[in-house]
Parts: sequence; C-alpha cells; structure tokens
Amino acid sequence: MQVGMVGLGRMGANIVRRLMRDGHDCVVFDVNPASVGALATEGATASDSLADLVSKLQAPRVVWLMIPAGLTGTVADEVAAVLEPGDIIIDGGNSNYHDDVRRAAAMKQDGIRYVDIGTSGGVFGLERGYCLMVGGPDEAVEVIDPILRTIAPGAGDIGRTPGREGDLAPEELGYLHCGPSGAGHFVKMVHNGIEYGVMAALAEGLNILHNADAGIREADHSAEVAPLEEPEFYRFDIDTRKVAELWRRGSVISSWLLDLTAAALQANPTLDGLAGRVSDSGEGRWTVKAAVDVGVPAPVLAASLFERFASRDEDHFANQVLSAMRLQFGGHQERPAGDVLEAGGRKAD
Amino acid sequence: MQVGMVGLGRMGANIVRRLMRDGHDCVVFDVNPASVGALATEGATASDSLADLVSKLQAPRVVWLMIPAGLTGTVADEVAAVLEPGDIIIDGGNSNYHDDVRRAAAMKQDGIRYVDIGTSGGVFGLERGYCLMVGGPDEAVEVIDPILRTIAPGAGDIGRTPGREGDLAPEELGYLHCGPSGAGHFVKMVHNGIEYGVMAALAEGLNILHNADAGIREADHSAEVAPLEEPEFYRFDIDTRKVAELWRRGSVISSWLLDLTAAALQANPTLDGLAGRVSDSGEGRWTVKAAVDVGVPAPVLAASLFERFASRDEDHFANQVLSAMRLQFGGHQERPAGDVLEAGGRKAD
Amino acid sequence: MQVGMVGLGRMGANIVRRLMRDGHDCVVFDVNPASVGALATEGATASDSLADLVSKLQAPRVVWLMIPAGLTGTVADEVAAVLEPGDIIIDGGNSNYHDDVRRAAAMKQDGIRYVDIGTSGGVFGLERGYCLMVGGPDEAVEVIDPILRTIAPGAGDIGRTPGREGDLAPEELGYLHCGPSGAGHFVKMVHNGIEYGVMAALAEGLNILHNADAGIREADHSAEVAPLEEPEFYRFDIDTRKVAELWRRGSVISSWLLDLTAAALQANPTLDGLAGRVSDSGEGRWTVKAAVDVGVPAPVLAASLFERFASRDEDHFANQVLSAMRLQFGGHQERPAGDVLEAGGRKAD
Amino acid sequence: MQVGMVGLGRMGANIVRRLMRDGHDCVVFDVNPASVGALATEGATASDSLADLVSKLQAPRVVWLMIPAGLTGTVADEVAAVLEPGDIIIDGGNSNYHDDVRRAAAMKQDGIRYVDIGTSGGVFGLERGYCLMVGGPDEAVEVIDPILRTIAPGAGDIGRTPGREGDLAPEELGYLHCGPSGAGHFVKMVHNGIEYGVMAALAEGLNILHNADAGIREADHSAEVAPLEEPEFYRFDIDTRKVAELWRRGSVISSWLLDLTAAALQANPTLDGLAGRVSDSGEGRWTVKAAVDVGVPAPVLAASLFERFASRDEDHFANQVLSAMRLQFGGHQERPAGDVLEAGGRKAD
Repeated sequence: MQVGMVGLGRMGANIVRRLMRDGHDCVVFDVNPASVGALATEGATASDSLADLVSKLQAPRVVWLMIPAGLTGTVADEVAAVLEPGDIIIDGGNSNYHDDVRRAAAMKQDGIRYVDIGTSGGVFGLERGYCLMVGGPDEAVEVIDPILRTIAPGAGDIGRTPGREGDLAPEELGYLHCGPSGAGHFVKMVHNGIEYGVMAALAEGLNILHNADAGIREADHSAEVAPLEEPEFYRFDIDTRKVAELWRRGSVISSWLLDLTAAALQANPTLDGLAGRVSDSGEGRWTVKAAVDVGVPAPVLAASLFERFASRDEDHFANQVLSAMRLQFGGHQERPAGDVLEAGGRKAD
Repeated sequence: MQVGMVGLGRMGANIVRRLMRDGHDCVVFDVNPASVGALATEGATASDSLADLVSKLQAPRVVWLMIPAGLTGTVADEVAAVLEPGDIIIDGGNSNYHDDVRRAAAMKQDGIRYVDIGTSGGVFGLERGYCLMVGGPDEAVEVIDPILRTIAPGAGDIGRTPGREGDLAPEELGYLHCGPSGAGHFVKMVHNGIEYGVMAALAEGLNILHNADAGIREADHSAEVAPLEEPEFYRFDIDTRKVAELWRRGSVISSWLLDLTAAALQANPTLDGLAGRVSDSGEGRWTVKAAVDVGVPAPVLAASLFERFASRDEDHFANQVLSAMRLQFGGHQERPAGDVLEAGGRKAD
Repeated sequence: MQVGMVGLGRMGANIVRRLMRDGHDCVVFDVNPASVGALATEGATASDSLADLVSKLQAPRVVWLMIPAGLTGTVADEVAAVLEPGDIIIDGGNSNYHDDVRRAAAMKQDGIRYVDIGTSGGVFGLERGYCLMVGGPDEAVEVIDPILRTIAPGAGDIGRTPGREGDLAPEELGYLHCGPSGAGHFVKMVHNGIEYGVMAALAEGLNILHNADAGIREADHSAEVAPLEEPEFYRFDIDTRKVAELWRRGSVISSWLLDLTAAALQANPTLDGLAGRVSDSGEGRWTVKAAVDVGVPAPVLAASLFERFASRDEDHFANQVLSAMRLQFGGHQERPAGDVLEAGGRKAD
Repeated sequence: MQVGMVGLGRMGANIVRRLMRDGHDCVVFDVNPASVGALATEGATASDSLADLVSKLQAPRVVWLMIPAGLTGTVADEVAAVLEPGDIIIDGGNSNYHDDVRRAAAMKQDGIRYVDIGTSGGVFGLERGYCLMVGGPDEAVEVIDPILRTIAPGAGDIGRTPGREGDLAPEELGYLHCGPSGAGHFVKMVHNGIEYGVMAALAEGLNILHNADAGIREADHSAEVAPLEEPEFYRFDIDTRKVAELWRRGSVISSWLLDLTAAALQANPTLDGLAGRVSDSGEGRWTVKAAVDVGVPAPVLAASLFERFASRDEDHFANQVLSAMRLQFGGHQERPAGDVLEAGGRKAD
C-alpha cells in the first residue's frame, strides 16, 4: 500500500527501506533535502513540502511522522491542515501518550484519524524489524495493517510460546493493537521503563563483580581506614567481559540487552573513556509518574531512573546536606576520594 | 571421561544424561535407590553408597555433588573421607561461596581439590545445556574441562559477539573458569541477583499495564474517595498476555525471562490461583550483602529482593507502625481494602 | 485584624480559635450550620452563606478557605465572584501547588489576590501552633502577616539556631513567605514527602527490631525449610515500645514523629487490630513526581511511597507475575504463608 | 560507684566528666598520656597501663572501653587477662553486635561478665546526656545501673508519653537494658540505620527544594536539549536555610536532625566547599545486612546507604556499563555535564 513518511532520520529512513523492500509505495519528506534525495535514489517518491507529500497520496491517505517528540505537535497540525476527513496520521515517534490522547481527540473533530505507534528496535531494526505497539481507533489500525506487518520483525526463528496454536497472531509477528489512542505509546513507555530496570540490574551486578577484588585492593588503603570486614571473601579478579559473554549461553538472564553488554565489553573491556553520565529520555520518567498516578509500586523502575540522575550528579546538593549534617553532629570531616569507610577514630554516631 | 554424580534430583539426573549422551562414563548415587535404578537403565553405573561410588572410579577421581546446599558440607566431608590426594570434588549446587572458600582451604589440607560450579539453566538444561560458572585451582579445572564442555550449551545458534575472532573461547561455549575457589558460586550468586532485578522490572512494568484501566475502574469508587487526578489518561484495558508475546519480537527487552513470562501468561492469562507470595533462595540475599560489603550501590537488586519479602507480608509490622503513627498525628483511621486515596475530608498532614 | 474562615472542620475551627484568642475578629461559614453555631458561641461572627460571610468583612477582605482540596477550586470561584479587586483569598488546605499556580493567575485577572498556605501541625495545632508555608504576592502576604504570626507557633522553648542573631525572623516564629503563588504548597508538599521518608525509616527499623527473634522462632519451622544462616545472631526479644521511648531521650533520631511512635506503641504495644493498610494523601505522590520532573534522585522518598502502595496490596499482580515466572523456569510452587526460605530441595536457579 | 575508663577520646572523656560531676569515682587510661593527665586535673585517678588501671579498682571491677571498634577485641582480651571472675567489661564503642555475641560467650568461660552499650548523643552528649542501649546478663547490668543513670540524659524537659504513669522507667531516663549480649549494639545499629534513612529523607527533600527553580534555569539550556515539560511549575527560588528553620517550629518533621540541618545551613547557606562525598560507618551496612538476614524489607534504609556509596562514585563502573549499552543499542553518545535530557534528535529506544 501507499504511505507518506515525514522525517527521514535513521529510523524513518530505515522504515521506508523496509517498506519498499516489501513492495510498498513510499512518498517521503524531510526538512533536509539530501535525506529525501537519498531515499529517492532507492525508489521512494520525493516531495519537497508537507503539502506536496500529501498531494502525492491517494485517499484515504496515510502519513507517518517519524520526528522528534518536541516537534510532533506542530508538524501533525500542519499535516492535518492539508489532509481530508478519513485520512490517517501516524505518530511513530517517542511522544508522551498524554499528547496522543489530546491530539487524537482534537484531530477527530476534523475527521482525521490518529494512530500512535511506539517503536522499538534501535539501530538493528532495518534487518531485525521493529517491534510495534499501536494505539488508535480500530478501523484506522485495520487500514494500516499491511504496513505494520511489513515493518514488524515477523515470527523469525523465535520459538513459539507453548500453548499458542493455529495462525500466528499479530503479536507473534511483532506488532499489536494495544488499545485506543495513546495505548501504543503507553505500552512503549512501560517497555522503556522496564528496559531501564533491566539495564540497571545488569549494571549493578557487573559492578559487584568488578569490585569483587576489594579484599585484594584493601591492602593499598591507609592504616587510618577501617578494613573490609571479611577481605578473604573478596579476592576475586573477575573478567566482566568474559562473564557477560558466558551468560549469553544457557543462563536464565540471557537477553538482547546482555548481548549488547557483551558487545560493549568486548569493544572496550575496561570501559575507559566513558564518563558514566547516563542520559535518560522521557519514557523512564513517564513510567514512574504513571506508576505513582495509579498507585502501583515500582521501586525497581524508580531506582533505575534515580541512578541515572545520580550518575549526572543531580544528587549533589543532597549529598552536601548529608555531609553538612554529619559535620554538625559528630564533627565528621569529609574524607577525600578513595576512602570507603570511616577512620578507626571513634565516631560519635 | 569418568565422573561420579552424587544427587540425582532433576538437575543431577539431567546432567548425567547429558554426559552419557556425549560418551562420558557416569557412576551415580542417590539416597533414593529408585533414582539410581532409573539412571542405571539409561546406562549409568549404579552404586549404593558413597564408598561404593568412589570405589568404582579411577584416580584421579571426579565426584560431582548435586545436592541441596544445606547438605553439601556434610556430604562433601563424607566423600572426602574416602577419596585420595589428587581427587576432585565438585560442588555443583547452590552453595554460598563463603562455604566454598572455607571448604576448599580445608580440603586442600588433605590434598583434595575442590571445584565450585554455579549452574544456570532450569528445567530446560537437558536440551539447552547448562551455563557453568567455575571456581577452583587451575589444574583441577583443566582436568574436568571435557565434562564442562559437554554439559555447557555450546555455541548453538547464538550469534557471535562482534569483535570476537578465531577459536571459540570457553565462555562462548557456555562455561568459564571465573577464578579461585568460590569464584564460580560468586558469579552465579550475582547472576541470580541480576535475575531478581530483571524479573522485578518485568513484573513492575506489567503491573502498571495491568492497572492502566484505573481511570475506568475509578467510577466504581465511593464518592468519599478522592478521584484519580487525571482519569482520562488511565483508560486502557491492556492485554498483558499479548504484550508479553509482542515484546519477544524485535524489542529491546526481549529475553529468556520474557519468553517465560509470555508462556506463563499464555498458560494462565489472569494468573488466577497464584497468591503472589514469592519465595527467595539465598543468592538474592547474598548478592545484596556482598554489595554492602564492598560498598557498591545496588538499589535495584535490593529493591527486587525486598519486594519478595513484602509479597510474603514481612512488611506487616512496619505497616502497622505507619498506621499507628498516622492515627496519632492526624486521627487517621485505616481505610478498608480497595481504597486508594484518602477521603476528601481534611487531612491534618 | 478581620478574617473570614470558610470550612470549620477540625483544623479550620482550631485556627479560628487560635485567632480569636489573640484578639482577631473572625467571620465564619461552613456547610454544616452546627459548626458555625459552635464557633459563634465562642465569639465568632456567624454567616449563613459565602455571600453573607463576604458582606460582613471590610475591604480589603481576607477569606481563608480550609476545605477539602477537591472542593477548593469550586468554592474559591464562588468566593471570588462576590469579592472585589484587592481582596485576598487564602487556600490553607492541601491543594496541589499546580492548582495554585493556575488559580492565582486566573484570579489575578479579576484583581483578586491569591495566597496559598501549607499548614502542618495535626491535631496538636491548637495548642502548639501551626507551621505555615506561604506562597503568593508580597503585598498580599504583608497584609495577612498579623494572622500568620498568630497562627504560627512562635519561638516557644525551641532553642535558637547557632549563628542567628537579632530580631527573630518569621521562620523562627513558625511561618515563612516561601515565594510566589504555589511556593507555599510546594514547600508543604516536600515537607510531607520528607515525612513519608522519616516515617518509613522508623517503621523499617522497628520492624527489624521486631524480627530480631528470628533465630528463636526458627525452631518452629518445619525441617523442610532452610534455616536462618546464623540464628545465633537473631535471638533478641526486643520491646519496641520501650526502645521507641528510649530513643526520645538524647538520641540522634529524637523527633516529634518518634514521640508519636512512642505514644502509639504505649497505647497498643502489639499494634493488634491494625491491618497495616497505609493510606497516602496526594503530597507524597506529588513530591516524587516533582523529583522526576526536575531530575533529582529521591529513592528514599519514592521507596516510602511505594511501601504504602504495597501495604494495600497494589503489588499483587506484580507478585503473581513473579510467582508465575518462577513456576515456569524452575517448577517452583508457591509456598504457603509462614515460609521464609526455599525448601532444601534443589532449586534450579 | 567506681569505674575504670579505657579510651579518653572525646566521648570517653566526656562520659568520665559526666560521671565525676555526679560523684562517681573514675580511674582512667589512654595510650595518650596527655589525655590521662588532662582528666586527672579534673579529678580522675590516672593510670599508666591497663594493669595499673585494673589494680586501682575494687572487685567487682567495672572497666568501660571507649575505643575504636577495630581495637576493642584486642584491648578487651588484654583487660580480661588481668581481671578476676565476677568483674565486668563494658564495650561502649561502635562494635558490631556479632562481636559482642562471640566475645561475651568467650569471656563467660573465664567468669568475666561482658556488657555491650550502644551510645548515641554526639558532641552534645556532655551536656545533653547519652542515650544508652544496653545488652548483657541481668545481674551485670544491675551492678552498673548507677552509672547508666548518670550518663543518660534523664527525663529532662521532654514531655511524658501519654499513658505512662507512676515512677519513671529507665527508658524514660534515657537508658534501657535491651536484652542479652549483643542486644545493646543491635538496637544501636538499627538506630543508626534509621538515622541514615531520616537524614536521606531530609537531604532528598531539600534537594528538590533546591532544584525548584529548574523552570527558570531552563532558559539557559541550549536549544538542543529537550525542555522541562512544564517549566511553569518549577519557578521557585526557595531558601532552604529558611525552610529548614521554619520546619523546626510546629511541623510534623521537627527533629534533632532537622535542628542540625538548620544549623548547618545557617553556618553555610550554599554548602560551598563540601564535596558531598558522604562517609558511612558500619552500622548502616550492618542494619541492611540484618534486614536481609531476617527477611524484612528495608528499602528506605538500603536506599539511604546506597546513596552514600554513590556519593563516593562507587556506582562508577555501573554507570559506565549503562553508557556503554546505550552506545550499543542506539548509538547514544554521552552528553557533557549540565545536560539533563536527551537532545531532540530521534532516540532509538
């Protein structure tokens, strides 16, 4: 079928390529003409404006936006202005699902059907396919089913879940109509919240392995610092690169994120050069706020988010407050970097 | 090569089967003669006591213990008593690595070589192979290399990590000599600690999805209860069974634990009949204690452990204390089950 | 000075009493005429409608709303409709500061000055005074300074902070103009967020003391359950009632919340009859969401909130998911209530 | 009564002073003769060795050790060697209660009675008195009751807990026999665990206040960084020094730790010069390990401990792992200090 793609960054362009490979007809636009030109050479129909893109589509038109979340609202409005009732706008970006709920209701006034799609897959999506979480009205999602099926990974060589029988369901092909407007980005949001938690679990565990030699390093500490209580249990010099590789094979925690971890440690076993200032995008934050809203405990997801904040020193003032309190009640001076425990000197509390 | 297996529970028996399939010669013992008999019919050499088992092995003997951690110490001592210097005892169970460190040192006095092996793989290990984390002296681990190679999953169809070249390293075949005595169970311990975190991340996320209909259910609440602040954003009726299946396909969080989650929800979509009282074995606890010992933050791993404690109501007294405090300072009475927020009535603090 | 009070629940009524004691002139209204009548007998001027109340005040009028947060918006609008430019509305309730920001801006259009006041003090406020956190325009806050000074606790017998000299600042008297509209409820929100954390710290610690006899109780466990690793260290039968009392005297954690805890345990040492289902009001939630918004780690505050959710079994589905996973990968059946550790039987992972 | 004090650091010396003020007879020793001399001029009996100190005491002798936990074992043995059956050794330091349990059992073999006392009070103890948590055999604790009563704060001007009647119980005077050997340090350990949690709650809350101006600072961010979602709600410039002072007056979270916080911010409102590397002593760690041992959830106490670890960059490798993973799956480069959110550029996941 025919689809218009607005936004030809890495993901937009690769989705177009995946669509064309499977015989779909793509009209493409980007603010960067070079991006348009590149895809045109691969078979896409170029356009030089939103209006031009829309004019090259047949009703009911399907326009897929793959642009930064901060711009989606503006561009969606511009596209809607040149569409007709019955046409479909897809937001495939990383929007907050709140915006979907609002936007879908507003567009509905003009007869435009709005579909939100959360997309997972990263840089490997072109080959591997993208996992698609879809929200929106039934009849619109039905219309775009052919392109969802193309973009999704398909069954591949992933084993079928025991108990599933008969024809493959969409979710077994890697796409799912999760519910009404917003449901797609909601499920994607929670997906990313989980991703934060899984990443943190791996990182914390590897950090423990990395420090399993504390009982050996201990010897380097000055006599003023209280020793590790049982140094004999921390005399391991674990090679985290090898362990990450090992766990990919037959262990309970084998996963794609572990595959990436193994690759990262293979490429840079000491991780030298990484400052460890971990960014976060919106989804991890929104997930925690959603958990708070509905009153569901999410200590692991929240902790993984807060660790990222702390990695960027956003805990600095809090730590200063703690040091300042300690200075007050016990006369404790801060110790320089490298010290782990208090000096043997009597601590007041 | 020849190996004696003590303990023929599910894992011990399956390891023997995997060894025999690959041509190794197994002498087996269990306190349950029926278990011994069953494996004898499959080709193993039966024995009716530890001494008998040892007598049927050639020096240097290799005796693999696959028994509950609580019994390993006693049985290891009994086995050691009938072994000779140069023989090898393997503890393949779920021992605390502290015990390995102590036991290995003690056995060394008698010339017995002690190897600790953490084993991951669950009920699927017979076919899939077991991921093996090995600790102990180099020369002993070298001796048992052939059986490790057999028990491990091998390279299988798991893609090679970019950057790895040449012959497959042991970790690419699913086993790794992690370090001296205790290192095997240490790495397995951290593995399980990570497993707790990953499981919790998935469970928390699915719980948020499960409660994404809070804005619909809200209507059922009594007028006395403060409403959800923005119910319009929580009107999704998400099918967690389908979402778990979906995420197996092309998403960033695809993993074996997610496969299991999908299977569990497929078998029982509502999870009816599960009380949600989650057990924990030792490894999650030991991991948190190790993190505390070496001074490494592990908030995600700790939170996942504490959630399990709370699932068994081990937070009960703490919650009573909170209710009791609230009763003191504001005259707040506890609300019955089902209420989420305070009544509209003025709350003192 | 003259002030109109709308809402004569416990806090509204006690604030009126505190104001009258200090010579202020109070006009009062409540939807419950009996509440109005009761205060009239104590010297307040009764009114039988918002319009009546406003008509009895002299410009610039000061109307204090002390009503449930859910109603504040409506009532504030009704009051504003009968006020004149230059008059002041005070929201002394537990509003979300977001509402203050919006409401203040809207009221400003009509020349009404809006002041938000977070109030802490609980049932003891009548005698002890209320800690007041004030947000709003300077000139409005200046107008109401006399009543703030009356309602606040004053310096009392609380020692002066070292380094402070000269006249007592407002914050030393127990009230503070924290900033523009919303700042009062913002500071009160964070105050309550901290309160959750402090309460949780006390509750968790007391729960550990309460379970310090685990090594004694252990003997009652069935032989199938793995024993506590070092029962010899958990053979204390601690009297939490006495410990809470003790800590009030000279310890670093002495605090008003500890006073309440001691009182609660004195009244009910076993806390029998409390189900431990802990409610939460909005502030704890809003605090966590604010932390997430500004990117500041708040693991302690979030954990204390999530514990309350879990106390009400909002973690139920998550726990079921964990049990279901465990059933999948290791054939682990859930254990009945009372069991803490896994059975000695070999656990797969 | 007569008591020998070994260890004349700040706390040891002040306890001696408090004892002498109340008429007790103190024999003192320290490795630093100057410390001994100083107290001798104040009325204490000097001694120049442990043996000398013991020789100046009458049976049953009471020797109080107030020395670094790391030295207590050695010194206790040396003292025990020159004592007689029936004599009493008090460990008033910050020992791990595990050591008490072991030491008490060992000393009992020689007829020495061992008492462990957890002491809270900080630098203010000389005037304010020390809160004493006592463990040991009944008959030994009875012997030392007079000195406990002197060292403890007494009832002071702290209000009596409602429901308490008749003679003041020891806990109302600030000391308590908590149970057998180890119980004193166990209760002190949990006390400090709670202290960590309370301190963290305050620090996190103040950090949120400190960042309540994020919506103002936002303007300084580069156009490449995603803006705060609702900057209009974060435009407060809160004076944390004043707020801390305010909360001391009539608020629910008034506490001694808040008093210290107010003093710290008064002394240094910006906390300039504090690096925010927060030390931890053993008790916070032991508390978390005890919670894990007995299977009690302690997420707040654990989080407060882990925050301290993170303040010292012990999370570094974990954060590097996270950055490395992100680099793998989405090509995300780390952002320099100051950036909070991802750039508007499309993020893969």
